[in-house]
Amino acid sequence: MHYQLYYWTGLQGRGEFVRLALEDAGADYTDVARVEGDEVMNTFLDGSADGARPFAPPFLKAGRTVVAQVAAILHFLGPQLQLVPESEARRLQALQLQMTIADLVAEVHDTHHPIASMQYYEDQKDAARQRAKDLRENRLPKFLGYFEQVLQHAGGNHILREHSYVDLSLFQLVSGLEYMFPKRMATLATDITGLKALQQRVAQRPRIAAYLASERRVAFNTNGIFRHYPELDAA
Amino acid sequence: MHYQLYYWTGLQGRGEFVRLALEDAGADYTDVARVEGDEVMNTFLDGSADGARPFAPPFLKAGRTVVAQVAAILHFLGPQLQLVPESEARRLQALQLQMTIADLVAEVHDTHHPIASMQYYEDQKDAARQRAKDLRENRLPKFLGYFEQVLQHAGGNHILREHSYVDLSLFQLVSGLEYMFPKRMATLATDITGLKALQQRVAQRPRIAAYLASERRVAFNTNGIFRHYPELDAA
Repeated sequence: MHYQLYYWTGLQGRGEFVRLALEDAGADYTDVARVEGDEVMNTFLDGSADGARPFAPPFLKAGRTVVAQVAAILHFLGPQLQLVPESEARRLQALQLQMTIADLVAEVHDTHHPIASMQYYEDQKDAARQRAKDLRENRLPKFLGYFEQVLQHAGGNHILREHSYVDLSLFQLVSGLEYMFPKRMATLATDITGLKALQQRVAQRPRIAAYLASERRVAFNTNGIFRHYPELDAA
Repeated sequence: MHYQLYYWTGLQGRGEFVRLALEDAGADYTDVARVEGDEVMNTFLDGSADGARPFAPPFLKAGRTVVAQVAAILHFLGPQLQLVPESEARRLQALQLQMTIADLVAEVHDTHHPIASMQYYEDQKDAARQRAKDLRENRLPKFLGYFEQVLQHAGGNHILREHSYVDLSLFQLVSGLEYMFPKRMATLATDITGLKALQQRVAQRPRIAAYLASERRVAFNTNGIFRHYPELDAA
């Protein structure tokens, strides 16, 4: 199967969670907008392309299937790429965990855009500063503590006891948060030793290591979801 | 199958999307916290109960399965309650649409809590007023316009061409928004005639009509996700 991934160029964003799965599996895929430009997504987003209309990128085309929403894309890809346990119960657990990652990613986005996603960060800095404090002090410990506990409960090596797309997304989540909040993540490190070790193991998987060293891996930057604004970070 | 739904008492909240599916299907279920109190959820949330630990309510127990996240719960229940088309492709589309509903619900929540979910609304009113303006003027037309177009593209009667849990959730979404933003939803009504008609049809389904008239349907209130604060509404 040849996969076509559609996502904005120039940033990792939500597309990166899908990209990591495709890369880890050595899948045959095209990152379409990087070849043809962002406007290639327009016919999907305005509903004039065949298939289910996506609300927003990322979306994936595989044969006649068009699927949007990161957690739905990974739920679809998981069995095809052998990146999820086979049983329906475990597949459901993977879906639920991925949705919880998506919830935190949405909160991370709203930390630099607490008022309006279409306005500049600079125009909502005061609210962002307040929201960042809550994220750092309350939400990050709650979410990361949850993932850490589920990981430890599963034996500590893989959150689903075997390698899965959820492990790859946890790598991305921890890496993104470390870029965005270096001070805060340093103080949280002792509470998430399992996640930190998982992050290292994922980074060393041969295909992931090759991908991270390639030009395909765009660096974290302040156009993405994880944005480093020093004024939003604190230990 | 006997289902046990776990959700906070005293509000509709995210649990209502699951409740509507169980009620529409005439499923055998217990709304456990309403019988035993909210503290019955603690052993699940702290990880000491058997099964996958949920991050937050609602979660559903069905035999040995414990599943959290509204869209994952409905993805699980859909085939069992005959509330989703049978093909994998349509089931995936239902999942994707439900996740997009969940995204809007999260934005609705953050409209009255733009800074910190654990602080009072009264302590973040200024930011709430700004965010509500963006939701009313930009986000609601974008999300509701999307659902309207997908519905019309599917023929106008059902968003998946046949009755599904997504229709039930769209009923809840439009109803909640009408409670929260009566002025804004009145001006948007002409742009979402398909969704409005769908809302009426769902309300008239015999089991839903009986449920809405029962004491099991808690009224919308300012403890839920959809909250009516007059200062956040405008035409």
